[in-house]
Amino acid sequence: MEQASPLHLARLARVQQQMAALGLTQLLVTDPDSVWYLTGYDNEPLERMMVFCVRADGQHTFFLNRLFPAPASPWEQVWFSDTDDAVSALAARLDPAAPVGIDKTWSARFLLPLLERLPGCRPVLASDCVDHCRACKDPAEQALMKEASRINDQVMTEAAAFFREGVTEREAARFIEKRYTELGCSGPSFPTIVSFGAHGADPHHEPDNTPLAPGDSIVIDMGCRKDRYCSDMTRTYFWREASPEARAVHDLVREANQKAEALIRPGVPLCEIDRAARDHIAAAGYGEYFTHRLGHFIGQRDHEQGDVSSANTALAQPGMIFSIEPGVYLPGKFGVRIEDLVLVTETGCEILNQVDKHWKILG
Amino acid sequence: MEQASPLHLARLARVQQQMAALGLTQLLVTDPDSVWYLTGYDNEPLERMMVFCVRADGQHTFFLNRLFPAPASPWEQVWFSDTDDAVSALAARLDPAAPVGIDKTWSARFLLPLLERLPGCRPVLASDCVDHCRACKDPAEQALMKEASRINDQVMTEAAAFFREGVTEREAARFIEKRYTELGCSGPSFPTIVSFGAHGADPHHEPDNTPLAPGDSIVIDMGCRKDRYCSDMTRTYFWREASPEARAVHDLVREANQKAEALIRPGVPLCEIDRAARDHIAAAGYGEYFTHRLGHFIGQRDHEQGDVSSANTALAQPGMIFSIEPGVYLPGKFGVRIEDLVLVTETGCEILNQVDKHWKILG
Repeated sequence: MEQASPLHLARLARVQQQMAALGLTQLLVTDPDSVWYLTGYDNEPLERMMVFCVRADGQHTFFLNRLFPAPASPWEQVWFSDTDDAVSALAARLDPAAPVGIDKTWSARFLLPLLERLPGCRPVLASDCVDHCRACKDPAEQALMKEASRINDQVMTEAAAFFREGVTEREAARFIEKRYTELGCSGPSFPTIVSFGAHGADPHHEPDNTPLAPGDSIVIDMGCRKDRYCSDMTRTYFWREASPEARAVHDLVREANQKAEALIRPGVPLCEIDRAARDHIAAAGYGEYFTHRLGHFIGQRDHEQGDVSSANTALAQPGMIFSIEPGVYLPGKFGVRIEDLVLVTETGCEILNQVDKHWKILG
Repeated sequence: MEQASPLHLARLARVQQQMAALGLTQLLVTDPDSVWYLTGYDNEPLERMMVFCVRADGQHTFFLNRLFPAPASPWEQVWFSDTDDAVSALAARLDPAAPVGIDKTWSARFLLPLLERLPGCRPVLASDCVDHCRACKDPAEQALMKEASRINDQVMTEAAAFFREGVTEREAARFIEKRYTELGCSGPSFPTIVSFGAHGADPHHEPDNTPLAPGDSIVIDMGCRKDRYCSDMTRTYFWREASPEARAVHDLVREANQKAEALIRPGVPLCEIDRAARDHIAAAGYGEYFTHRLGHFIGQRDHEQGDVSSANTALAQPGMIFSIEPGVYLPGKFGVRIEDLVLVTETGCEILNQVDKHWKILG
């Protein structure tokens, strides 16, 4: 039997603390990213059951389908095949008298049969036990995310130099994604956004065959995934010329980005960071055009549990990594968004993106 | 208010028949592909709630987050924001005395709160009400899938002509995916597989930088997605030369593919189609090297509910589209897989792929 690595034991200890706070002795971890985070086992079982049961007493158990490769594991393994009743095998090993922590993404196909087999048991949504840990990156994770953002900086700089009159959004997006692969990434961390002119007023515009023309704003929202961890950054440029309003809005959004980042340190409520950016944009009369939250957490996936929004009163903690991405979207005209990833440090924050964010006319 | 389209009304009527057979008067459809299938509304709400409640009496209701664009809909719409209690709004509009049909992929984050708010209600896993309908493609879907397979035939032919000494698996996969985009597809329907030589013995090998060398088998498993519907085909070629065993295994797998396809007509149990291919391979002594089920259903996604396997005693029905993909995988040596999509017709089946499947030496 394998030894558990110190890294995984430390993560498990943090999860067990969270479980204790909720009075939980058993927690079914089923999100493949969370299973990997706690055990190093990397598997996406799709419609098949995979459960890592974390127990308060440290007697954790893996429930695994024989179809997939066996993980090296110091924990008890319970194996089943497609023809076995996996849910019954799981139910038989749970304490029916104690509440059972359930992962938020676990699907009805398993949850309903489990509840049938444990009629007295109290299920408790308890993903936060793991998600709160995942929100604060340990040093190994911080190093990987810095590397992913370093590559993102490099490719953003290359992308800014790639534009030519008539090049299409889709060609630019393809160039960016090709460079990620060439630089050793598994790919983009989300479909790359390149939006010209009025397309930039839709924050989630999908790149199409629109050619670049003078006066266009160019919103580039891009990120890569390398060694499992993600980057995410947005810059907005202009092609050949920019109207006075476009320049002014760009300055405004940049200032909002910088005001928010200047506020970040442990103990500051995330909603106050959102407010700093939002108030600055609203004071200039553009409040109604900043239509989304200020930021999202990020790690193994581009969007992870947690956000920087008016609704989130949680406090910033050392190790958290999230985006700061104010934007102003003027329908039919243009959009500006400026986004960095930031790492909360003991005394403030470290901005993981170095690409200059002042407005700039390309071409 | 919009009129419901005849297409969607016909699909809903089929779902209501399935519900009646299970004694269900209310069914929560939450799988975005199923919601689109029944209503035409195309949305992927990720961690937000989206429910289309199908009712036996035809009074269907949409539960929608204001964050997403409003669907054109003839059905009642209940709107909520991120700060509202969406699950309570849903619970308030269900019949607490009747069982509630639940989609298999609905997540615990909604299901557990719903069960809390409806303590007396009986939840029933009931995705099959929709999945059984989706398994039988209507004429509009058949036309889209034939077009996706026509493109797949064309790109497979181009791919076979693309190989050169030293070209890598990854370069070939990229070529295929680039051609899909150029031909108007949204992309591949799954990550393209190109496997040289011994890599072919892993059915799910990921293309890497291995260069093509004489004697290699070349397994190409590829599909595109166009107008939402998918194709999927596998052919196995050889580069410059092929050993007598490789040729014989290729013949064997092709015969298994053809024997299975020859059997397909309405009323035949899917497990018997699997057995026809499996028995033929086993009779030649290669049974243990055919390590997976014969086929899977396909439609809006490359893999949909339903398969052609020894465990599936369901009967073939007109309109079903699934893959027939026997394979033989010889560890350390090579692999051969030959896959078509087939459409069950009133009298037999129509094979959606036309690319010749006899063994062929390229180069």
